[in-house]
Amino acid sequence: MNIETVKGSIRSVFDFPKEGIHFRDITTLLKETEYFNYVVDVLYEKYKDKGITKIVCLESRGFILGGALAYRLNAGFVPIRKPGKLPAEHYTKKYDLEYGTDEIQIHKDAFDDNETILLHDDLLATGGTALASLDLLSNFNLNKIYVNFLIELNPLNGRDKFNEDLDIYSLFQFD
Amino acid sequence: MNIETVKGSIRSVFDFPKEGIHFRDITTLLKETEYFNYVVDVLYEKYKDKGITKIVCLESRGFILGGALAYRLNAGFVPIRKPGKLPAEHYTKKYDLEYGTDEIQIHKDAFDDNETILLHDDLLATGGTALASLDLLSNFNLNKIYVNFLIELNPLNGRDKFNEDLDIYSLFQFD
Repeated sequence: MNIETVKGSIRSVFDFPKEGIHFRDITTLLKETEYFNYVVDVLYEKYKDKGITKIVCLESRGFILGGALAYRLNAGFVPIRKPGKLPAEHYTKKYDLEYGTDEIQIHKDAFDDNETILLHDDLLATGGTALASLDLLSNFNLNKIYVNFLIELNPLNGRDKFNEDLDIYSLFQFD
Repeated sequence: MNIETVKGSIRSVFDFPKEGIHFRDITTLLKETEYFNYVVDVLYEKYKDKGITKIVCLESRGFILGGALAYRLNAGFVPIRKPGKLPAEHYTKKYDLEYGTDEIQIHKDAFDDNETILLHDDLLATGGTALASLDLLSNFNLNKIYVNFLIELNPLNGRDKFNEDLDIYSLFQFD
């Protein structure tokens, strides 16, 4: 198993969800046991010595590998969710989309002080959602935040939105 | 660690998402490493000898433990999603809610013939979504389907909706 084979299992779909978008479909990777395992194991090797105590994942595709990675890294799991899903006290962050705005939320009791966390999502596109997530996380007294994406879409320059000293790692880059 | 301690970590929230609903919030379980691990390990022990080749999970809370369980069981991961999320050819099932209808979808290339699968969701309430999922799965030529829920709400009698010889297992029962 090598990384190019696993990357090649990601399906390309043109004009989804709307015209002009080149969609990267990870269902064709996830359904193959050896590819799924490969991704989890590579990310485990990358982060195993960082002292990560919780994985924070974005609804909903981020939950899939995030759940597996939490188990593999022996860490807790914290979801960032769309409005109306978290039942206890939470922080809310509103952010701009291409058209309109969106909101994400996190429970106020998600962390203890000084935790080291890994923020995971499947996709870094324009970076808007990840940036909003970091803003949500700024409400907590955390030790360090690592950021991981399964896929990064280079032409959208999402990475430029983030502070240079933020530790961001994407497994698959697409040009 | 024992099952009552882990069950006790599930937070009770009354009148969420609407009046009269007693919501079981698993975020308080998931964020604790030892509880999260416990759940994955118990489900692993339950299913490890069944020859399961894929875990099929319902969006979006079902993705969390489903992802971890797929890794642990050395199985592939298949999502069942809300409309507009799956980019390739898919089957659709419309089903009735208390008010109105909902739809779920699965990719047509999700399985090979004769696979043994585990359908996982976090919650068995009235059973409507799980029943619709089984209907989606009836489009495929599968060997056997196991069904697992993290939580079963006994007063809603969701289990009565299913064929008696279906293998259904819920980890936590609430009266």
